[in-house]
Amino acid sequence: MFEVLNTEQGARRGVLTTPHGKIQTPIFMPVGTQATVKSLTPAQIEETGAQIILSNTYHLNIRPTSKLIEKFGGLHGFMRWNKPILTDSGGFQAFSLSKLRKITEEGITFKSHLDGAKLFLSPESCMQIQKELNSDIRMVLDECIPYPCEKRDCLKSVERTIRWAKRCKKIHDSFADGNLTFGIVQGGIYDDIRKMCAEELSQMDFPGYAIGGVSVGEPEEEMLKQVDASTKYLPENKPRYVMGVGTPVQLLKMIALGADMFDCVMPTRLARHANAFTVNGVINLKNSRFKEDHSPIDETVQSYASNFTRAYIRHLVVSNEMLACTLLSIHNISFFLDLMRQAREHLEIGDFAEWSNFWISRYNSGEKQ
Amino acid sequence: MFEVLNTEQGARRGVLTTPHGKIQTPIFMPVGTQATVKSLTPAQIEETGAQIILSNTYHLNIRPTSKLIEKFGGLHGFMRWNKPILTDSGGFQAFSLSKLRKITEEGITFKSHLDGAKLFLSPESCMQIQKELNSDIRMVLDECIPYPCEKRDCLKSVERTIRWAKRCKKIHDSFADGNLTFGIVQGGIYDDIRKMCAEELSQMDFPGYAIGGVSVGEPEEEMLKQVDASTKYLPENKPRYVMGVGTPVQLLKMIALGADMFDCVMPTRLARHANAFTVNGVINLKNSRFKEDHSPIDETVQSYASNFTRAYIRHLVVSNEMLACTLLSIHNISFFLDLMRQAREHLEIGDFAEWSNFWISRYNSGEKQ
Repeated sequence: MFEVLNTEQGARRGVLTTPHGKIQTPIFMPVGTQATVKSLTPAQIEETGAQIILSNTYHLNIRPTSKLIEKFGGLHGFMRWNKPILTDSGGFQAFSLSKLRKITEEGITFKSHLDGAKLFLSPESCMQIQKELNSDIRMVLDECIPYPCEKRDCLKSVERTIRWAKRCKKIHDSFADGNLTFGIVQGGIYDDIRKMCAEELSQMDFPGYAIGGVSVGEPEEEMLKQVDASTKYLPENKPRYVMGVGTPVQLLKMIALGADMFDCVMPTRLARHANAFTVNGVINLKNSRFKEDHSPIDETVQSYASNFTRAYIRHLVVSNEMLACTLLSIHNISFFLDLMRQAREHLEIGDFAEWSNFWISRYNSGEKQ
Repeated sequence: MFEVLNTEQGARRGVLTTPHGKIQTPIFMPVGTQATVKSLTPAQIEETGAQIILSNTYHLNIRPTSKLIEKFGGLHGFMRWNKPILTDSGGFQAFSLSKLRKITEEGITFKSHLDGAKLFLSPESCMQIQKELNSDIRMVLDECIPYPCEKRDCLKSVERTIRWAKRCKKIHDSFADGNLTFGIVQGGIYDDIRKMCAEELSQMDFPGYAIGGVSVGEPEEEMLKQVDASTKYLPENKPRYVMGVGTPVQLLKMIALGADMFDCVMPTRLARHANAFTVNGVINLKNSRFKEDHSPIDETVQSYASNFTRAYIRHLVVSNEMLACTLLSIHNISFFLDLMRQAREHLEIGDFAEWSNFWISRYNSGEKQ
């Protein structure tokens, strides 16, 4: 299912095969929380070069429900996206969005953030919901450990995450539907717990592995250290997905640590606040210095948004026009995907480290918003 | 510039030639007030079959200003729309949106609805602004008469509108830029004033004529009567544009009265409130009866939105997702344009009246929101 084509030190260039097609890695996955990548049509998402998108089990299970989506041919049929889809387990949002959650060995009890309805998520139901969504890549139910966290509590939580992973793997095997399920490495900031978790999960032989519980408030250095502490104990021949991160620079640094897949709401969320990524850093299109700027957002990145000047997009922003959000989302997602495309090319050539250093230094020293 | 290809009683099938291309009439013009048809990219607008769009001089002159737009190659270059554009004169909004407007023989003094800045619009400056925007079709400055209005006041106002039209025509002739300028027939609900105005303007030999001051609160019957009282005194060989209307049924009725062009915010405004046009009437996609509806919005109208089920669009609506607005706007505009396409076909065949009666009766008797 996963083939490593090239390596450069720890970094990898690979291909992951899923029921809805092949994914060239390293890859960034645009986020479509509610079965829509905010403000974009599937045609526009495809035009950005997206190979796979992510959607959220927690939200979809509450509304419109996975049972309904199943009747429409799963997520692919419902939202008319024919390329691969990854869904998370819903566990993270059950913690971060809902009130009065309670965790037991059986699963997570929580209240819907929409209407307060009492809901329950177990490893088994989490897999069942994702089967109904028919996502190409399913995630196991895990407990996301807050930062900071005492080591004793962290260990106790990770041990349960491992037991839940085992239950999920059993359900996954029973489905035998060709879709993939990824185990999730937790362990907070404790290298030895990360190692233990990665090794335990590796033994279960998941089709792929995720690194969870990063970017939950810890410093960036710590985050990268935990990615490193996880990837190095995961099997070489399986894809590695770092959940919910990160900035362009963080992506490059995590690729160097052997990560293959990423997702983040940053490109679309920043777009909604008029921010655009450029090779020289983030700019805010609301700024009056762009009032008569004839250049596109970033001359180095081609997308449908390249047809428009900064001045026009600024006009849309100050006029509160929805098209601003659409064009900035197209640009930002294209920017992230183009960065991954370049990373793959440099991994193929073998000068990834050099190029990455150059890219990061230009980005960090450039114009700022 | 305008060729009538077929007629059926008063109704006409024609072709209008502009600097940015030919327009097949009867035609509906989607409204792009602030140099954007709300929520749609130019590519999406083109995909709906739009041949010409309308933009608003009042808004653009306040922000970002016509001077700025001129530096970007006019409206076409600024918003990246390569087909014809019609701009209104800004006079209507100076009345309806701004505060403290004052009208004199020289022009209209008013305060910006955005920042209260004092502004002035004369027939000459109105033409100059539209020249900077470089719209294919410019409108003369006129005074929109409220409903109801005393006949004496109406006559006084129309006499000034005629004097302003003369001043605009003089400027138009001096431009000699190949763009068209339309005169505007006013006259409130008074047939004889409409007739007088239409005849006076006809003598000035404008490239086209608009019918203004309709749908300002008067009953529909009255509106159609005034369109009739205007079109029948306008030259056969010039296009006739009814400003700011109307519903699909009204469009068909006005075509029968010899009108060729229409614009209305209805398709995009209703889309923002989850309303969709169907051949059986308007439906509201928020309605729970569409929760599991596998059909497209309207099976008879093809557009990019036809790829999606009512159930999916309803999910987007109840989840407050922007894509709902985009898809509904695409559908509604496509619906209006498809109606015009059918009208043109039936005018060519010669069974417009019969088809139009059938269409109206199905629309009026169908399912409602």
